[in-house]
Amino acid sequence: MRTHFDCIPCFLRQALDSVRLVTMDKSIQEEVLRKTLRSVSEMNFSDPPPAMARKVHRIIRAYTGQSDPYISVKAGSTQMALEILPELERLVTQARNPLSTAIRLSIAGNIIDFGAISEVGQEELSKSIEQALSIGLDARTVAEFQSMVYEAQHILFLGDNAGELVFDRPLLQLLPMDRITYVVRGAPVINDATLADAQAAGMMDLVDVIDNGSDVPGTLLAACSRSFQEYYKKADLIVAKGQGNYETLSGENKHIFFLLQAKCSIISHSLGCAQGTFVFRKGWQSIL
Amino acid sequence: MRTHFDCIPCFLRQALDSVRLVTMDKSIQEEVLRKTLRSVSEMNFSDPPPAMARKVHRIIRAYTGQSDPYISVKAGSTQMALEILPELERLVTQARNPLSTAIRLSIAGNIIDFGAISEVGQEELSKSIEQALSIGLDARTVAEFQSMVYEAQHILFLGDNAGELVFDRPLLQLLPMDRITYVVRGAPVINDATLADAQAAGMMDLVDVIDNGSDVPGTLLAACSRSFQEYYKKADLIVAKGQGNYETLSGENKHIFFLLQAKCSIISHSLGCAQGTFVFRKGWQSIL
Repeated sequence: MRTHFDCIPCFLRQALDSVRLVTMDKSIQEEVLRKTLRSVSEMNFSDPPPAMARKVHRIIRAYTGQSDPYISVKAGSTQMALEILPELERLVTQARNPLSTAIRLSIAGNIIDFGAISEVGQEELSKSIEQALSIGLDARTVAEFQSMVYEAQHILFLGDNAGELVFDRPLLQLLPMDRITYVVRGAPVINDATLADAQAAGMMDLVDVIDNGSDVPGTLLAACSRSFQEYYKKADLIVAKGQGNYETLSGENKHIFFLLQAKCSIISHSLGCAQGTFVFRKGWQSIL
Repeated sequence: MRTHFDCIPCFLRQALDSVRLVTMDKSIQEEVLRKTLRSVSEMNFSDPPPAMARKVHRIIRAYTGQSDPYISVKAGSTQMALEILPELERLVTQARNPLSTAIRLSIAGNIIDFGAISEVGQEELSKSIEQALSIGLDARTVAEFQSMVYEAQHILFLGDNAGELVFDRPLLQLLPMDRITYVVRGAPVINDATLADAQAAGMMDLVDVIDNGSDVPGTLLAACSRSFQEYYKKADLIVAKGQGNYETLSGENKHIFFLLQAKCSIISHSLGCAQGTFVFRKGWQSIL
């Protein structure tokens, strides 16, 4: 997905939100903003938004000298999610349609996105879970997902944010975990999950976990490690969580199911849905 | 007033809104955005926001080759306001407190601000008039204004946007018009009023009208003509309409009454009021 002009004010807002979270030092904030403005002025609009977000957050890490500015935010999110986990598992176990419920709860976890939302606490999480329980999913898509999962030999599950990973656990437990490789980012960027966050979320107890070798808040294939690219080529089914993975993979000719909350107007426009919608969609290209 | 970091995403949104209004040509839109980003990256944050807005709109005019991109928007606003004028005059004439009503209606007209709001039509105007009629003004400020108007020999009335000028007419008619000089911008910028717009609004039939010699969407004294600066020095009372005039004159040691709608969070924060508030305030410095 190309970067839209409307993403530009948002890059600046994101940079401002993030640098404020990391430091109170106005002169560093100013330096980050100036450098971000220059960097955005030179960006290639054919690149997806996460390519620019990577640059913005590299700037923030460089100017603040913090290699993982969201480390405590991420730890807090994981802790919060782990406290809710028994309730999530109970909801899935007792559901009339456990798979649909698990998918919806996995999408509920996608609210923990500090790129799109400035603060996510207990209240936002509860509201998101409530929304998950109140909506329906397209039955045909669920059925198609189920049959493809059954047939697939190599499933890649592309995780998104720290804390959100915990919300994927009930879904993973309904899938053939021995054929799933769970993927996180290769280095810290915003509150996206890395191997350390996957460890904290207990993902390694369920499935194989690898990182994609990149600090893009999404899956920009060209920026990923050779090793991840091999996994990607081999995969016959991909589950992709969140906006960043959608923005970077929506044009791919692969069997990809996207699970996300459409948090911004550009994404919801691209998906043809209202802002805030819980999205469970098979990739466009793969239908052809 | 300094430029806040939060103004930066807003500058970009403004540039995007404006260039889209002027041209559908994506390559021109892109050029304007890139140039705006570079320009903002070099700005002096001690300058008030209108200093940057001037640069942004100079870029838009230069790249689109249109010297007055908002010319038809402005004509439409003036036309719309002139149609409402008899009703505004009736409301003031029949009011229990005509001066207070005229001040509030003058502030109602400040909704016609294409810098802050992307579209203003009949509906927004009606809502704004309704708000004007439902609120109260601080009685002491109105009394102080009345007594200062009575004593002042040289009153400058700093107008703001095309169309909004018409909303100032009922107020002017309650003031000593022979001691008032009405001021518009020296050149087109956003939908700010110029001499041509003042003419269309019929301002010359009531008072002397001059322009300030500058294309800043506010009153940045250093950028104004020598002639305007003389008027400014001589003035013993100033009425300043809108955010741009507030942003550029809020620190001035002069008797200034500001009439505006606090349309953005930075302004409302600076004024200590909720966003959307109708503001009628005497300048801070002049109280000292």
